[in-house]
Amino acid sequence: MGRSIGIGMIGLGVVGGGVVRALQERGEYFARQVGAPLVVRRIAVRDPAKPRSVSVPPELLTTNAEELFEDPGIDVIVEVMGGEEPARTYVLRALEAGKHVVTANKELMAKWGPELLAEAHARGRDIMFEASVGGGIPLIAPLRRDLLANRITSVRAVINGTTNYILTRMAHEGAEYGEALAEAQRLGYAEPDPTNDVEGYDAAYKLAILATLAFRARVAPSDIMTEGITKLSARDFQYASELGYVIKLLAVAEERPGGLLARVAPVLLHQSEPLAKVDGVYNAVQIEGDLTGMVLFQGRGAGAEPTASAVVADLLDLAHSVVYGTRDRKYWGPEGEIPILGPEAVESRFYVRVTVSDRPGVLARLAKCLGDHEVSIAAVNQKEANEDQQTAELVIMTHRARESAMLAALKEIAALPVTTEVSTFLRVEG
Amino acid sequence: MGRSIGIGMIGLGVVGGGVVRALQERGEYFARQVGAPLVVRRIAVRDPAKPRSVSVPPELLTTNAEELFEDPGIDVIVEVMGGEEPARTYVLRALEAGKHVVTANKELMAKWGPELLAEAHARGRDIMFEASVGGGIPLIAPLRRDLLANRITSVRAVINGTTNYILTRMAHEGAEYGEALAEAQRLGYAEPDPTNDVEGYDAAYKLAILATLAFRARVAPSDIMTEGITKLSARDFQYASELGYVIKLLAVAEERPGGLLARVAPVLLHQSEPLAKVDGVYNAVQIEGDLTGMVLFQGRGAGAEPTASAVVADLLDLAHSVVYGTRDRKYWGPEGEIPILGPEAVESRFYVRVTVSDRPGVLARLAKCLGDHEVSIAAVNQKEANEDQQTAELVIMTHRARESAMLAALKEIAALPVTTEVSTFLRVEG
Repeated sequence: MGRSIGIGMIGLGVVGGGVVRALQERGEYFARQVGAPLVVRRIAVRDPAKPRSVSVPPELLTTNAEELFEDPGIDVIVEVMGGEEPARTYVLRALEAGKHVVTANKELMAKWGPELLAEAHARGRDIMFEASVGGGIPLIAPLRRDLLANRITSVRAVINGTTNYILTRMAHEGAEYGEALAEAQRLGYAEPDPTNDVEGYDAAYKLAILATLAFRARVAPSDIMTEGITKLSARDFQYASELGYVIKLLAVAEERPGGLLARVAPVLLHQSEPLAKVDGVYNAVQIEGDLTGMVLFQGRGAGAEPTASAVVADLLDLAHSVVYGTRDRKYWGPEGEIPILGPEAVESRFYVRVTVSDRPGVLARLAKCLGDHEVSIAAVNQKEANEDQQTAELVIMTHRARESAMLAALKEIAALPVTTEVSTFLRVEG
Repeated sequence: MGRSIGIGMIGLGVVGGGVVRALQERGEYFARQVGAPLVVRRIAVRDPAKPRSVSVPPELLTTNAEELFEDPGIDVIVEVMGGEEPARTYVLRALEAGKHVVTANKELMAKWGPELLAEAHARGRDIMFEASVGGGIPLIAPLRRDLLANRITSVRAVINGTTNYILTRMAHEGAEYGEALAEAQRLGYAEPDPTNDVEGYDAAYKLAILATLAFRARVAPSDIMTEGITKLSARDFQYASELGYVIKLLAVAEERPGGLLARVAPVLLHQSEPLAKVDGVYNAVQIEGDLTGMVLFQGRGAGAEPTASAVVADLLDLAHSVVYGTRDRKYWGPEGEIPILGPEAVESRFYVRVTVSDRPGVLARLAKCLGDHEVSIAAVNQKEANEDQQTAELVIMTHRARESAMLAALKEIAALPVTTEVSTFLRVEG
């Protein structure tokens, strides 16, 4: 062991602390795996005086990230600060300075992954980001390596723990959205401002990263149709359950004739589907390869320790290849283009809950609107009426239909004098 | 692309055919990933005249494996013949001749993995075996790489598709073992001689491989207590279900005080456990790491295409490192010893079904036997009597107890004049 592997860290929050702790506690074991000791040489932080969960020698801390890039004793930069900027600038600087990069930053990789992968490749360096999606669940490496022989046809994922916790509470306890969110916030599963999670943006970042690797084509967050979970009602969970379904915030990227469909939205999933059984703060990703068939990866998708586990795995992999002299780096970014399909291209079955006047002939009028647009009804259920308001609820499951036709029919239904409200409209998957 | 990567294959059966087909159909894509074309230069088979599912130029075939080892144009040997010998001799010869090896052979790796890993490392070569466990489910690479930062505390797996298919039929359709086996044989999920699967040997091979990697200590098939599924009755599935459990053939390797417990046996698993939900021919492996927490990998555990997917992934990985000049190889075999615990060390809850004379006082006598050995009863259920034979069934769930105490109590129970038979005895996991 003539040399050591120098590490520079940017950020020392929850994940960074977990990484430092793992390196401190298992240094000897890691050194055996890699063939050289891993040494944290410098850590860039905003506030060196801030109390930390791990103890590090104060002289390692700096507020100037440039010191890391200029240090010839640093081989790998670990970026765990999060956010788009200045993280992107730092990562580019690190690559320019000849460092490898490990990042846990999903926003960065979702928005800039292809550019960063190309830049890394051009400089004979690597950027690794297992921790950016799904915490400690191996996902990036399996896509990059283990499934490489496959043509991948779909990626379907329950990939946001906050919303899955909320939806699981709504399903199992009949909680309304607001209650379940408040509970999640109380337990620390949801942020004080939960927008990023509950509107589906976080899931869309993760899907963009997975889909870009799976299809070897750029899928940007802005390519992904994204809907959140804020409009769901406890009743929908009850009705879905009666029909044999659960409601999940599903991130899907799949090949369809003409291109790629990429979407994050709450959907009805049949109870027998593996993803329907993923409850609480667990995440799961189901990948369909033409050789492997369906492969499912499940685990805790967030948290300091699972995420640190992923960062360290990347770090050990990179460090090993530095020690053992891998000459060049494989390019693993996009190889081509894939057309991204719009919602008009989607065919699906649909679940609709409509609040209507409780009088004869109403169902016939709704059915006509659907029939006029060639949407045929698979099942219909009239739910108990609200006597005070003289309204009733109709729950309709359709056969497969084009989403554009369904939306046109719903517009007409909403305009009917007998319709109080189109309360919920969800796709049915699987 | 100055050079190509030469491949020699040993065996051209179902899996070998799948590998050749993938290389033929995706050669160009693979060449881009690896940085050089992959060329099958020679295939050793027993009978060159045998009809094959893939078409290969007849001049590639040979009955003499030695020709492969002596060919300087061959970089990697793909061993897909199966069985212990002559596979072991061939793999050793390949390493000796400076070739890397990819194998799908679980018996070989379970029995000889540590020796072969050491031999490969000593020669600066690698032996890869993703396809030896779990078909197309990534398991070996995640253990070798993605979970490396973790201390792994348990590996629990439903890892034999044949038995899982049989048990699923028994659970869902009330089929008896013999019927379910016959059905599995008819569908090609079970061999004409099903011993290797139904007695748990196949699962024990796979567990030996996984545990050796997870605990970095040799776990041999002979270290694993192995029981099969042939004595289960449809009634046990029904009673288990009433108690909220399913019955699965579970392969477990877990750290316990004093050493490692390694076992393959049918057990009761609570319905809420992820592994309880893995039905039919699916396999799943649940790994508990101290950082990641529980991570689950699920997919089709067998079949030509999933297995070929795993072989090709290893092949691409090796080929890439040959092209890009990785100087040395990481040793990833056992690092130390771990004491293997015997059954006397096991503590568990237990499920027992006893057929007894249908008369007063019987339960009290059974309960006394258990109590005398400090096994306490958690639940007891008297099932409908068989009036002709004047017998009844008692289904007992115990609290946590030592298996040695439980076995001693059962011996006494079996000897009671009121006992017709101790019909089933299973551990309860989770």
